[in-house]
Amino acid sequence: MAPTTHPADRLFAAIERVGSPACVGLDPVLEKLPEACQALGDALAAIESYSSELLKAIAPHVGVCKLQSACFERYGVAGVGVRDGMLELARELGLHVILDAKRGDIGISAEHYAASAQPVADWVTVNPYLGVDGIDPFLADGELGAFALVRTSNPGGDALQALELASGETVAEAVADLIAAAGQQCVGACGYSALGAVVGATKHADAQRLRSRMPQQIFLVPGYGAQGGGVKDVLPCFDASGRGAVVTASRSVIYAFQGESGPWQRAVERAAEAFASELKAGIESP
Amino acid sequence: MAPTTHPADRLFAAIERVGSPACVGLDPVLEKLPEACQALGDALAAIESYSSELLKAIAPHVGVCKLQSACFERYGVAGVGVRDGMLELARELGLHVILDAKRGDIGISAEHYAASAQPVADWVTVNPYLGVDGIDPFLADGELGAFALVRTSNPGGDALQALELASGETVAEAVADLIAAAGQQCVGACGYSALGAVVGATKHADAQRLRSRMPQQIFLVPGYGAQGGGVKDVLPCFDASGRGAVVTASRSVIYAFQGESGPWQRAVERAAEAFASELKAGIESP
Repeated sequence: MAPTTHPADRLFAAIERVGSPACVGLDPVLEKLPEACQALGDALAAIESYSSELLKAIAPHVGVCKLQSACFERYGVAGVGVRDGMLELARELGLHVILDAKRGDIGISAEHYAASAQPVADWVTVNPYLGVDGIDPFLADGELGAFALVRTSNPGGDALQALELASGETVAEAVADLIAAAGQQCVGACGYSALGAVVGATKHADAQRLRSRMPQQIFLVPGYGAQGGGVKDVLPCFDASGRGAVVTASRSVIYAFQGESGPWQRAVERAAEAFASELKAGIESP
Repeated sequence: MAPTTHPADRLFAAIERVGSPACVGLDPVLEKLPEACQALGDALAAIESYSSELLKAIAPHVGVCKLQSACFERYGVAGVGVRDGMLELARELGLHVILDAKRGDIGISAEHYAASAQPVADWVTVNPYLGVDGIDPFLADGELGAFALVRTSNPGGDALQALELASGETVAEAVADLIAAAGQQCVGACGYSALGAVVGATKHADAQRLRSRMPQQIFLVPGYGAQGGGVKDVLPCFDASGRGAVVTASRSVIYAFQGESGPWQRAVERAAEAFASELKAGIESP
């Protein structure tokens, strides 16, 4: 067996391949797919056809993709099969793969989730509500990385994550400290940990504070494009040398064909290319 | 289509069928299965055989079972198939079914998870870290109930859930208030909501405070038996009339054959019966 390469080192290699920390989030919803895909009649066949074409279209331009597990799990056992097939295809295309499953359990159950994700993905998203008991098992074998939810961009997230503690910190900041401590055990040659953090791009001031609390965490930053975030909003997620974050756009890329003429794959490819370039330029000349 | 029966009403009917709020947690791990199952050679075949025999053994004595999704997902697509088959079998046997998947996502992804759980389970466990955005979609169709993690019994849970807020409450108490408010929209004829709460049985004082904050939430109480909790520990989770909670034992029932002679199914059946009786007696004469 080849020696294990640390997940953070693999992620940085994927970013370097294309020169941009752009990640495309694949969360396909039947009603929004191109007509050619919907015309297949079967929902899961449509999603499979669309996803495979999309991965091929984006692979030359972005280094990383994130698959939303729920969009596939919705279709039961067959859906999980398509999900795993798409994760495999993504890797064959040279993409680094994040499984967005937001798993959160402890002990043997967390070990099982890790064992389930490890063969098909480079990273998995996890939920910190159960504390480090729910996170450590994902990091145990050294192959898989985990992004823990710290600060999310949905409106309802504030009700818990923005609460002020007696110590003066917010709940999200306390979670950040937990994650920073738990991640120290597994830092790669790149200086970053196999335990990263999900930090929503719409929380600009939060991101600055969280960056300083989690110097060894790669930030997975959703919410670029359709969710309202732009280059300026994501800059605080990077370190002083423009590293340490991967930025995800979903709807603005994967549905870029809407209102466009020509093959839908070409519209998606152009959008992925533009997203990666815009991000690269913004980081190089902040 | 038959009119929808509220999930809390269905749960109480299941409890009344056997006269005890006992729930058996099925989280099978290959290494711990009876030799006859392990002898099947294939891990998933062993788990399928064991799970189906176990469900048949417990069904006469308990009204509710909880399946740990991770133990099946570990085996990929085929494992999810076995999980869904076991959920179906449990219902055929008259058991009320909780899918312990601890899902947590927002918007369309949460809707997808709900759509995935609804055909196979009566309730699903969910994670509150994303706020009500991550919970409401599970309750939207009125068929499915959701137990949100509020206070868990694992040691690492304290690091977040026991933190003191500036308001003087703990994080878990603030989450309890969120859940109580979100659950008001979906209260059944029994007076309890389709949104329940997971409250670990090892936190006795917490349970009392949380019971008063969440008068309409059914408590799903793990940790009975092998995890150290006894009847006295779970009593604060019930309301004044001895209702409002379902108590889960796992290892003390599902591995009750260890060190016993005779058929393993009989040992498991006896343990399920004893667990249900002990709980019933403890609630009736507190």
